[in-house]
Amino acid sequence: MRKFVSGNLNYSSWSIRALLMARHVGLQVEEEIVPLDFPATTARLADISPSRKVPLLIWDDETVWDSLAIIEWLAERYPSVWPENPAARARARAISAEMHSGFPTLRRDCPMDIRSRHATPELTAALQADVQRVDTIWSETRERFGVRGDFLFGDWSAADAVYAPVVTRFITYNLPRSEIAQAYMDAVMAHPLMVTLAEEAAAEPWWIKYEAGVRSAGFTSSENS
Amino acid sequence: MRKFVSGNLNYSSWSIRALLMARHVGLQVEEEIVPLDFPATTARLADISPSRKVPLLIWDDETVWDSLAIIEWLAERYPSVWPENPAARARARAISAEMHSGFPTLRRDCPMDIRSRHATPELTAALQADVQRVDTIWSETRERFGVRGDFLFGDWSAADAVYAPVVTRFITYNLPRSEIAQAYMDAVMAHPLMVTLAEEAAAEPWWIKYEAGVRSAGFTSSENS
Repeated sequence: MRKFVSGNLNYSSWSIRALLMARHVGLQVEEEIVPLDFPATTARLADISPSRKVPLLIWDDETVWDSLAIIEWLAERYPSVWPENPAARARARAISAEMHSGFPTLRRDCPMDIRSRHATPELTAALQADVQRVDTIWSETRERFGVRGDFLFGDWSAADAVYAPVVTRFITYNLPRSEIAQAYMDAVMAHPLMVTLAEEAAAEPWWIKYEAGVRSAGFTSSENS
Repeated sequence: MRKFVSGNLNYSSWSIRALLMARHVGLQVEEEIVPLDFPATTARLADISPSRKVPLLIWDDETVWDSLAIIEWLAERYPSVWPENPAARARARAISAEMHSGFPTLRRDCPMDIRSRHATPELTAALQADVQRVDTIWSETRERFGVRGDFLFGDWSAADAVYAPVVTRFITYNLPRSEIAQAYMDAVMAHPLMVTLAEEAAAEPWWIKYEAGVRSAGFTSSENS
């Protein structure tokens, strides 16, 4: 069995990071979506995923979980996952790992919701620091490594896939940004992989809402209902 | 300049993960410790670290931050960082990345403090789940990949360095564990790199305390004071 398991593409930022790169290299794999927050979700994930989380790559008798570990798995087998230049590749991994373990306020206050537009949350000092740091990462990386293309390291790489959910958050919550950041965001959203993903996210029937800090999930049975 | 910058070895779990591997491969580099939580800490880190965090590797004109990114930098240049077998290496990266972004309760309730022994915190459901998941990772990995040696994948690898701070937490807070986990923990603490590190941690003059949820830092000027 060769399968890539994601959460809802509209909401599961970890899933789409790895999925974008699996599609980028043309990985021949069935895609399954386990919609998050439903009564059956936990049981299904416990069944297939050692960490009970998505994303998950099942490749014959190998099971690889976590977005970064899947990206490294792809990078060992396909070119053009990380930048080719060693110094650029080291920087790409540093900013990707920083996103992987950091930015708790941005995550909490601006959960990914690609197809929606929400009011900008209160720009607390912590949120402002996260937003500013993202902008600095984009701007400095573009200036130093990205001059020959539209993406962080010129051509599209795993670093762009790692930051793509953050680009959508900046749009969904209309977060403040520099001009360099805006140009980079435009490039990401215009990338064919992102255009497709945004269409799929918009078409998903499942929804997740936050009201007064309470998260709930549901399902829209048809577009006319 | 070639420099590896850590936080206090006794407290900075992220630092020691990468430092253990830098020492494992024999990286020729000056080591600097920036003790955490002092008035001068923030300014010093802002000076040298783009993410304002440790660990940090300065290698001529390259600056690489984040434990996992530094480990991958080492893996591209030295053998025996990740396991040699591709399936084992994929698993090693999956469990390392899971630790990198997860286990928030274990981190919060049991901050690393290698040289001390503290009361076991209340085993809430969330803490118990983290502790159990760590034990499962150690046990399953040892059984499937580690039969030819004492470590997760037989020989010492980056996965052991990633989990070494967790081993010390299990000891410091006397967390419950299986027999397989205990044997693994004994092997980690007996590894020459860990013996040296524990001695260095014990000798550090800086201390960090948590009292009623408030974190404070200080300095012991001599062992006789």
